[in-house]
Parts: sequence; C-alpha cells; structure tokens
Amino acid sequence: MEQILSSLSIATPGEGFINITSEINHWIVTNKINKGILVLFVQHTSCSLTINENADPRVLEDLSTFMKALVPEEGINPMPGRKGHIPYKHSEEGADDMPAHIKTSLTCSSLTLSIDNCKLNLGTWQAIYLWEHRSQKHSRKIILHAIGEIQNNNQLSKLSSKAS
Amino acid sequence: MEQILSSLSIATPGEGFINITSEINHWIVTNKINKGILVLFVQHTSCSLTINENADPRVLEDLSTFMKALVPEEGINPMPGRKGHIPYKHSEEGADDMPAHIKTSLTCSSLTLSIDNCKLNLGTWQAIYLWEHRSQKHSRKIILHAIGEIQNNNQLSKLSSKAS
Amino acid sequence: MEQILSSLSIATPGEGFINITSEINHWIVTNKINKGILVLFVQHTSCSLTINENADPRVLEDLSTFMKALVPEEGINPMPGRKGHIPYKHSEEGADDMPAHIKTSLTCSSLTLSIDNCKLNLGTWQAIYLWEHRSQKHSRKIILHAIGEIQNNNQLSKLSSKAS
Repeated sequence: MEQILSSLSIATPGEGFINITSEINHWIVTNKINKGILVLFVQHTSCSLTINENADPRVLEDLSTFMKALVPEEGINPMPGRKGHIPYKHSEEGADDMPAHIKTSLTCSSLTLSIDNCKLNLGTWQAIYLWEHRSQKHSRKIILHAIGEIQNNNQLSKLSSKAS
Repeated sequence: MEQILSSLSIATPGEGFINITSEINHWIVTNKINKGILVLFVQHTSCSLTINENADPRVLEDLSTFMKALVPEEGINPMPGRKGHIPYKHSEEGADDMPAHIKTSLTCSSLTLSIDNCKLNLGTWQAIYLWEHRSQKHSRKIILHAIGEIQNNNQLSKLSSKAS
Repeated sequence: MEQILSSLSIATPGEGFINITSEINHWIVTNKINKGILVLFVQHTSCSLTINENADPRVLEDLSTFMKALVPEEGINPMPGRKGHIPYKHSEEGADDMPAHIKTSLTCSSLTLSIDNCKLNLGTWQAIYLWEHRSQKHSRKIILHAIGEIQNNNQLSKLSSKAS
C-alpha cells in the first residue's frame, strides 16, 4: 500500500460546472494507481465538488437555476408570510460572495472515490464536477490524495504485495 | 494494511429510505475487517446516501416531506414576490427526475466511515440510509471499498502486521 | 502505512459553529502523522461538520440565518401559493430537534481530509467547523481515523518504509 499526493489547478470562467472526470482518470493512469481510494478536496470556500449526470447538460442548467433561487444574491429568502429578503451581513466581497459560501456548505468540499483497474469506479451516468459559485473567473486548486496499490513490475513490488 | 472492494445491490420500491447499516456490518464481519476506513459510494445520480436517526421513523417522513417541498416536481420554487414555479428544462424522464438530481447534489453520493472491532463506528442513534429520490422502483448499486487491517491467523499475516 | 483511531469530545453551547481546526492539527502533530488521509465523523444526527471561511465571523452568522429560514422551527416552509407551515411529525424532543435532523442531512456527517507535513492540507481561508444545530448545550463526539505514514526514527520504521 502506497500513497500519492498531488493537486490540480482549474481555471473557472465564472458560475457553472467543470467536468474534471477525465482529468482525474488521466492522473490515475499516469500514476499507475491500480486499486485504491481517492480523496478529492477543494481548497476554497466559494466553490464545491459534486457528482451528477454527465449526459444532458440541461441537468446542470437546472441545478444552477435551483441554487440561484434557493440562495439568491438579493439576500436570504424570508419565511412565508414575511416580506423582503434578509440582507447578508458579509457583503464586502460582492453580492455573489456570501451566496457562494452558503452553496459550498450545502454541497461538498471533499469527495472520496473508489479506484479500480486504474480508473474511477463510477456509474455510467456519473461525472465529477467542480462547481464554481462565484460570478467572476477564478483559479481553483483541488487536492488529489490516493492510498492504494501502485502498479510496478520490479522485485520490491512483488515482495511487498506478498507481504501485505 | 489491505483493501477489499465489493458492491451491494439494493432494490428500492420508490421514493424513501432503506436502512443499509446491518447489511454493511454483516459485510464487514464476513470480510473480517477489524479496523479501517470504509468508502460507500452510490453509482447513481438520482439517489443518495445519508446518515440520520434510526429510532423514530417519523424523522424520515419529515425529511422526505421537507425535500419534496424544497425541490417540488412542479418546478423550481420562485423567489419571494414572484409567482409560479420555474419549469425544469430536463423533463423528458418524468417530473420526478430533475428533482431527484437536485436532491442528490444537496445530499451525499459518497460517505466515508470508520470501522473498529469489526463494525461501523457509529453513534447510538445513527443509521446509514440509501435515499431513493425517484418515484418508481429501481435497482441501485453501492460500492464498498475498505482499507484496513484484516483479521487472519496465519503466519503471513503476523509477518505483515509486524512489518507495517 | 499505519492507522490511528481516536476521538474528540466537544462541548457546544447551543446552535452555532465551533472551529476545530487547531485541535485536529494538534492531534496530528502529537501522533506524528506525516502524510495520510483523515476521516472525521460526528456520531450524532443533530449536528454536522462543515468547511467554511475562517476570517469574517459574519460568514457564519449568515450561514446560520440562512439555515434557520430554510428549515424553520415553525414547520416545513410550504410551496409557493400555499399558506402556513407543514408541522413536523417528529416533535416530542423540542421544536429545534427535527430542523436539526434536516440540517444534518443537508450538510455532512463525515469529512475526508488530506494530511501533509504533519498538518491538514487546507486552503488559506478554510476552517473545519462542528456545526451544532440544537438550541441547548450538548457534548458531541467526533471520530478521528487516520491512515498514513507515521514519523518515527527506529529501525522497524525504516524497514517498513522500504518494504511498502
């Protein structure tokens, strides 16, 4: 059993989804991680990681519309019967900033995945997305930390595999 | 340290919760995983994994009612002061499909758990649930990927344990 | 590769956030975990773990206000055009109890983190919070389960490192 720690930098053009599945699978193949678990961790508090459908892009559009209505820039949706949004106290960094922090807590900053046969053990319709919640472009860093069996053919490896 | 990778197929009768805790504990005992971490990963984008109370079934009923009001089949709840739901663009697979995708992103596709003394290291009132978000029955596949110490009494194992 | 399993008890004064980042980093240093992954798991169904900004405390105030409006004690927010909250069925343990269960399912009971150079591999602005959802004070138990490389300088360790 070995571990590999790396990171991925993703440029985001503003609010929306970036499919990082193939980039992660490429990293797994390059590092010859045959079987193991992979922790993905995004080092920011205004974007998140999510798993959803990889086929119809309108799934992502609806997800985005839902989140914008649930966590609007105007302020917190009031309870029924009350009028007007509740203003955000944290507002200095722009109207999209506090909603981004809330969306982050409603989704995931870390995902733990299974690797088998040198690729992510996903369902047919699943993709891993970096979900940017800010309006402007950003550079986002994702930690990739795997623990598992690395493929290599030298004698030391065979010995280790027998012993574990 | 060793790893064990397996899967579980769960038949769901429609929207609702299936307690999979004892099935997972049974798998842990069968595989003699004494101590380790377990990644649960559901390979679908319209159901999820959640941890909640195992005692009063009305907790689950309220959870379900809450989610149906938050993510209704009629469309996305409009912001205060605006009328009418915002229709889902992704609607070909039924009125319950897009809400199921949204509910998945608001909950978890993967859970990472601790195993100690050959069972899940849970609190007294906790259970692991597969939360089916679709209305119709489905067959759902959950990946179980454990890394840890396996109990076995042969010489090789003792050797490995000393060496690690 | 080794594993270390421990737990942390946190006294919460009522609804709100407790920053547990430095306590976890202290545990990592004490246990000399040089590099590995860490599973945090809270053994309760009415509080959760979340990662958010460590700088402006008003981010946490807004998060709290948002969640109270989304999951009010009065009952489930009705869909647009309907009047009055939908009462919770599970209500015996207080008006704050069922909202706490719902908030738990909307956030995380477990987080998986990366450890590098004997500390959490977090972004500059990130902190790990225990988010208490109940109104009264509670004692909360968090499981810390790490798998990775432990720093020690004796001969056995060097042997193990070569063999793995």
